[in-house]
Amino acid sequence: MSITINQPLDMHLHLRDKAMLKTVGPLSSASFSGAIIMPNLVPPVSTKEELIAYKSRIIEACGEDTFTPYMTLFFKPSYTKEFLKSVKDELTAIKLYPAGITTNSEGGVSGFDVNELRPTLDAMSELEIPLCIHGETNGFVMDREAEFVSIYEMLASNFPKLKIIMEHITTRESVEALDKFDNLYATITLHHLLITLDDVAGGMLQPHLFCKPIAKRPEDREALRRVALEGHPKVMFGSDSAPHPQHTKESCGCAAGVFTAPIALQVLAELFEGHSTIENLQAFVSNNAKAIYNHIKVPHKTVTLEKKPFIVPAKYGDVVPMYASETLAYSIVNIQG
Amino acid sequence: MSITINQPLDMHLHLRDKAMLKTVGPLSSASFSGAIIMPNLVPPVSTKEELIAYKSRIIEACGEDTFTPYMTLFFKPSYTKEFLKSVKDELTAIKLYPAGITTNSEGGVSGFDVNELRPTLDAMSELEIPLCIHGETNGFVMDREAEFVSIYEMLASNFPKLKIIMEHITTRESVEALDKFDNLYATITLHHLLITLDDVAGGMLQPHLFCKPIAKRPEDREALRRVALEGHPKVMFGSDSAPHPQHTKESCGCAAGVFTAPIALQVLAELFEGHSTIENLQAFVSNNAKAIYNHIKVPHKTVTLEKKPFIVPAKYGDVVPMYASETLAYSIVNIQG
Repeated sequence: MSITINQPLDMHLHLRDKAMLKTVGPLSSASFSGAIIMPNLVPPVSTKEELIAYKSRIIEACGEDTFTPYMTLFFKPSYTKEFLKSVKDELTAIKLYPAGITTNSEGGVSGFDVNELRPTLDAMSELEIPLCIHGETNGFVMDREAEFVSIYEMLASNFPKLKIIMEHITTRESVEALDKFDNLYATITLHHLLITLDDVAGGMLQPHLFCKPIAKRPEDREALRRVALEGHPKVMFGSDSAPHPQHTKESCGCAAGVFTAPIALQVLAELFEGHSTIENLQAFVSNNAKAIYNHIKVPHKTVTLEKKPFIVPAKYGDVVPMYASETLAYSIVNIQG
Repeated sequence: MSITINQPLDMHLHLRDKAMLKTVGPLSSASFSGAIIMPNLVPPVSTKEELIAYKSRIIEACGEDTFTPYMTLFFKPSYTKEFLKSVKDELTAIKLYPAGITTNSEGGVSGFDVNELRPTLDAMSELEIPLCIHGETNGFVMDREAEFVSIYEMLASNFPKLKIIMEHITTRESVEALDKFDNLYATITLHHLLITLDDVAGGMLQPHLFCKPIAKRPEDREALRRVALEGHPKVMFGSDSAPHPQHTKESCGCAAGVFTAPIALQVLAELFEGHSTIENLQAFVSNNAKAIYNHIKVPHKTVTLEKKPFIVPAKYGDVVPMYASETLAYSIVNIQG
């Protein structure tokens, strides 16, 4: 039996820059039609010029014909309506980080003052630019996302015409928020569908599974699986694939991020097939995203997988992927497009 | 102002063996009068001969006059009363590990069948040999200790004359169990008085703070601090200082354990002084242990500390200590004995 996915999309991806971009970019463009590209470079992508230049570097690394990088800016409350109008055609969304909450997010938002945010968010609503949010407070690590849900709800109710994407959700609380507001959506990563804190710190400590938000409890994973596997229309696949050089992961003070781009479709096929929900995979990895981000153009591409062992490389360049050196049940056997 | 501690005791210590023992043993014997020595070598210490031989290797590494290693056996339900009688004079306690729960515990107890355990535990009760327990189930990492409390309570009620030490407790639930049964006691480590999961995984991942049981929530740390700082008579200091070579901590699959032996008294002095409870430190690091382990002989030793910066070495041998290269507020300025 083979599984064919049309126009797979990764709605949350870190491609980095320079040599790392050249290593990881082609691994995403090989099997995805497009991806929402995170702007947290150093310095973050926050001007039109930076955005256009970064997009051209991505296209140079990934090729142009069958993969579209959907660009984002790093949210600043100082963005004016005029600025947003001028850059609208170049971007797909804007990404908001609370200050200091994850890799290269030092310049993010501190405090969520509706009056301060209103001019920018009203303009984004009017211009139909979605707002992607890394939703964590600076509270206790297991509570940060659940504590942020009230901020999601405050923003959703104050800006009812703004599409708000709760990025890489990891908790039951975020799943429950999805159905409370028409304008709340979510991405879910591969790794949060698979692991809990037990996999990170229950046996030996596993730095390659350490990420932000940290993997949570079994009941949280169950809630995520439920909406992903049913193809819930407000939920999209977003890998949050986040490469770090090996020495920054296996060290004293390990960087947060799991690298999954080259194995994502294979593992998703196994997960959905294993739960007898393979018919919903197309919605999760493509159709829902196309409906939510209804302005994007998606290059033609079909990816065919079969149940056939795939040995994950120990490294891609200097990056250790999830399931390094392990054998996956599904392989990509053909890509058209 | 100086702080003087008489006969400091570390009631839970890993000294390992061979070269590691030679490195870490003298760091404990320098400032403690004695320590309960964990038996989880490879293979675990479970015969009289092994125990006597290990004790002599410790004395060789640590010196004999001012430091007593209080020896323990690795609990097995096959220990008979005759065996325990024969070894009683050589040991101070017996340590029970659930199977596979931590470093070198593969041969531990699986399932807690009172009938299976009764002959050994009855004999220990009669011979007044305390039972030290690493109390974790194999459940979700944040729940393992709280889930084990019902087993502590089952053992405490079935064996009312057995002194049961809940080792390195990390949760509010264990603290609450202390006062429910006369025969339940506890050790608390330095690091669990100081850190929560936030310190391990809230920022960058910190392998040198990864331990078992894993550090828990802020409210758990508060409960531990409360009983430690008040000098609760059923609570003793036990560092669980657990050295691992640096490469096994900073790697893919990091070993569990925090190395604190050489900094414990300095940091405890700062913690107790900072909470205006310095008068209770003597109970926590010595007097309570002498009352609970009422058979032990404790070498004379006094350790004097002053508020004077102490720069923690980056490494002791190949072991990275807690607070490596940081500056502590208190120094040991004199040791008599």
